[in-house]
Amino acid sequence: MEAITKLSMNVCPYIKSHSVQALRQISSKSSLANEAKQCPFMKQALKARESSMNYSTATKPVNATAIPQEVPKTSAYSFKSDNLVDGKIGISELDLSSNETKFDYNGYLNNELEKKRSDKSYRYFNNINRLANEFPKAHRSQEEKKVTVWCSNDYLGMGRNKETLAEMKRTLDKYGTGAGGTRNIAGHNQHAIKLESELAALHKHEAALVFSSCFVANDAVLSLLGQKLKDLVIFSDELNHASMIQGIKNSRAKKHIFKHNDLNHLEQLLAQYPKSTPKLIAFESVYSMCGSISPIEKICDLAEKYGALTFLDEVHAVGMYGPHGAGVSEHLNFNEHLKSGINKVETETVMNRIDMITGTLGKAYGTVGGYVTGKNNLIDWFRSYAPGFIFTTSLPPSIMAGSSTSIRYQRSNIMDRISQQKNTRYVKNNLNNLGIPVIPNPSHIVPVLVGNAADAKRASDLLLEKHNIYVQAINFPTVPIGEERLRITPTPGHGAELSNQLIGALDSVFNELQLDRINQWESKGGLCGVGEANASPVEHIWTDEQLTLTNEDLNPNVIDPFISPNPVSSGIIV
Amino acid sequence: MEAITKLSMNVCPYIKSHSVQALRQISSKSSLANEAKQCPFMKQALKARESSMNYSTATKPVNATAIPQEVPKTSAYSFKSDNLVDGKIGISELDLSSNETKFDYNGYLNNELEKKRSDKSYRYFNNINRLANEFPKAHRSQEEKKVTVWCSNDYLGMGRNKETLAEMKRTLDKYGTGAGGTRNIAGHNQHAIKLESELAALHKHEAALVFSSCFVANDAVLSLLGQKLKDLVIFSDELNHASMIQGIKNSRAKKHIFKHNDLNHLEQLLAQYPKSTPKLIAFESVYSMCGSISPIEKICDLAEKYGALTFLDEVHAVGMYGPHGAGVSEHLNFNEHLKSGINKVETETVMNRIDMITGTLGKAYGTVGGYVTGKNNLIDWFRSYAPGFIFTTSLPPSIMAGSSTSIRYQRSNIMDRISQQKNTRYVKNNLNNLGIPVIPNPSHIVPVLVGNAADAKRASDLLLEKHNIYVQAINFPTVPIGEERLRITPTPGHGAELSNQLIGALDSVFNELQLDRINQWESKGGLCGVGEANASPVEHIWTDEQLTLTNEDLNPNVIDPFISPNPVSSGIIV
Repeated sequence: MEAITKLSMNVCPYIKSHSVQALRQISSKSSLANEAKQCPFMKQALKARESSMNYSTATKPVNATAIPQEVPKTSAYSFKSDNLVDGKIGISELDLSSNETKFDYNGYLNNELEKKRSDKSYRYFNNINRLANEFPKAHRSQEEKKVTVWCSNDYLGMGRNKETLAEMKRTLDKYGTGAGGTRNIAGHNQHAIKLESELAALHKHEAALVFSSCFVANDAVLSLLGQKLKDLVIFSDELNHASMIQGIKNSRAKKHIFKHNDLNHLEQLLAQYPKSTPKLIAFESVYSMCGSISPIEKICDLAEKYGALTFLDEVHAVGMYGPHGAGVSEHLNFNEHLKSGINKVETETVMNRIDMITGTLGKAYGTVGGYVTGKNNLIDWFRSYAPGFIFTTSLPPSIMAGSSTSIRYQRSNIMDRISQQKNTRYVKNNLNNLGIPVIPNPSHIVPVLVGNAADAKRASDLLLEKHNIYVQAINFPTVPIGEERLRITPTPGHGAELSNQLIGALDSVFNELQLDRINQWESKGGLCGVGEANASPVEHIWTDEQLTLTNEDLNPNVIDPFISPNPVSSGIIV
Repeated sequence: MEAITKLSMNVCPYIKSHSVQALRQISSKSSLANEAKQCPFMKQALKARESSMNYSTATKPVNATAIPQEVPKTSAYSFKSDNLVDGKIGISELDLSSNETKFDYNGYLNNELEKKRSDKSYRYFNNINRLANEFPKAHRSQEEKKVTVWCSNDYLGMGRNKETLAEMKRTLDKYGTGAGGTRNIAGHNQHAIKLESELAALHKHEAALVFSSCFVANDAVLSLLGQKLKDLVIFSDELNHASMIQGIKNSRAKKHIFKHNDLNHLEQLLAQYPKSTPKLIAFESVYSMCGSISPIEKICDLAEKYGALTFLDEVHAVGMYGPHGAGVSEHLNFNEHLKSGINKVETETVMNRIDMITGTLGKAYGTVGGYVTGKNNLIDWFRSYAPGFIFTTSLPPSIMAGSSTSIRYQRSNIMDRISQQKNTRYVKNNLNNLGIPVIPNPSHIVPVLVGNAADAKRASDLLLEKHNIYVQAINFPTVPIGEERLRITPTPGHGAELSNQLIGALDSVFNELQLDRINQWESKGGLCGVGEANASPVEHIWTDEQLTLTNEDLNPNVIDPFISPNPVSSGIIV
């Protein structure tokens, strides 16, 4: 077909002498049909078509494929007609390239959207405007319509923190609204240097690099590693976040998916390769949709044994775990870090054994952006090679300065973490007492199992409309079909009064919609750890003893830490 | 090898009965050697090894591969030793998985970084702190050390715009520092709805969708199209931005690269496929490193002829072209849009013929973020399927609100665009008069050709250190080797006085470093349009007549436009 088209375009003097616009204009006036009648090729084709038309029904639209065989093979003319009157051809449009129609993009898109609607995975966004001065309240589209937000990832309420807000406004006034360039071209500044130094210090790693988001950080880091490190094999937890999945896919590296938190399966997969094969284990500390926590230390053991790099996503853990909020990997050496403050711990720590930690500024730290930390040469390599870092505008100075303030604030405020954990326990315990099925987990996430998409949305809508409580329903593809849930995230601002309202509202919604409670899940054999016979009890990662600490127990040198100049971020390793 | 390891791990009761930590502890005390002597397998291996050692030199480190053939094949023990005294083995470390060493990650990274240093593509970032109240000045690491910034992409100086700053601070106070969630979970709000409505209105498209950055928008949109649209063939301009290249690569779609702005080549490639094959032409309006502008209208003609979608990146053009700053595609129907203001133009326009326009909030609009506009179903499809949109924290309310203010401000301020263009002409003309080689182009970019990486960096350093002028050197891979340049971006704030300083400084630097001027490029046959014999004169896209307009010439209904509620962004198409 394409050969015919090209040939015709080259031989027809009429087509060649007119611009596409001119032809379109002529065509719209139908005068091209007259022109065509003068053409030895087209004359014949039109005659054949007309006689063919006279035998067809008037209601059936005729497209170019109906042109009979006797049409010269070299002709590139074709016709579309929606108006057939008495079998006559009303030529309304000239298709210049071929007698085929173009791909039906609209039909495709409408069909894909319809699929989402019919399988109930189509998403309707709720208009939620979180109010800094009435945290955790928000208004809906109308300002007077207030709701309590119970599903934000602003886990510590840092979005309304006075110090962060003041720093952001101060920075806006002095340094303006945006960075004005990529990090290489006018967008590198003291705010970036300071933030990356804070992050490196937080994780007690040598260096850090900031990205537009942790989605970008995960995608950029994992895809670069797989693309550049020849023969790299990536081992990825089956519940890893979409950003990691995308990074791993884009890396084109060979990959193995291991069962969630399953060390035996992971080792089985690792053991297939010689130790000399470069490997990377990609996993998270807190899995956000079920609240499970990975066996970080044991994964480090396996990494060491089989010669693998470790990539740990602490997105849902930074700010939330460890005496200074550096994440679960800090939490695992709680006392050592508590004692040493900002200084490195002398003995080996879990945090130190991890090659790469990625984290976000957009959840517990309340702003936006993502990052990776690690050794100097690794971070410098990302800085030098990752397109997702190099070719994008830096975060605004106010965002970077505000994030630094947030991190520093949280590093010296263990009370926020403790209060968040206490509120989480309160909600979990009381829901359990009512038989409302909380998926058991050791973290700050409160996933309430519903079990189907329609009911989960109904429950969410009912909470919103009747109880002024906003908890988004979590449906496929974020969770598997049949495991739909409400994901509740208490903060230090969700004390007993608000919690009691939530608990009462959930109880009412579970009654009204006749949703399954724990005993009903039990009778079905259980799901996701709810009502399962042999489920072992889950212990919170924050121990009772840790929950008795106060800010005074922190090593005071954390309050005003020495920040290394993080020379890597400027391209100078000292 | 791996089979042996696995087998050993399964059969050795000693290894199986100890945890990895316990084995490491035993090993560190060297007592594992004694244990090993009890083992029928290892006893033999150790003896063989010892006798072999006695014949080797004491200075040569011995690794496990030196274990002789008679070692039983099922043994998984191997030893590393750095201390050989008199040929005796000092067992210091037990390698549990194999007798191989792990991949040398450090060596690889150091080597890759060294490559960058040796080919001069290693990047050193300059610490540039742009001052809102002294625009276009910035301070370096020390506050008192001021420089004039001549290479920021804050093209219109919107970074210090009082209206935008006030809106951002107001929004910070009321709605806090961050969005607190993804668009689906607590991160959708009136600021997102309003911004997407503003963007759709700006481009006179049905809908818009905001991303973390335009890097993410381009990557997400292009990769989704190629992954989902079966058999899609992508036609990409060879100078397309890294984000588009990444998106196209990640799409896995079949692709063709056409020569920069070469319609004949593009058509040749398009004509290879039947019209029914889904196709996409991906291109930019203003190419940022050379300032060239694409033949948008003619590309639309080809797209129509061959049944292709058009994807136009207007990142460097939004805010800058067209009576209302909607980009080059608006500029091409200047008078029609000038007259109609915010309303759609009745006749067909270039902007309307484009299927997707992507743009940024981080350059002429001064904040951060990116977006795509198009028809309702296309935008809803991106909203529903693109992981880079779905699984990431929304931009902070203050950023979105500030961006809306910026867009609206620029829509009614043609004077900023005109003043920017006048300053650009002034700089280009005066540099040309001095024979300083500006790569000819019709846009707002002033690329000064240097021609090698070392000189470009030297020139940039000299401008900074001696003249307090910051212009970043642009080297490979951003531009091809041999085409290294200084990329200068005048703004409305760079009037005659600052321009004269720049021009004088460049003249001095060109003298001091003996850089090639136009006549020298001429004698070499020319490069990039500089000193090329048959180069046709370039006309600025902003005509002399357009430069006489004022804000009063804009249709007043642009000042307070009706913003449609953009229901697509909430998942409800009306």
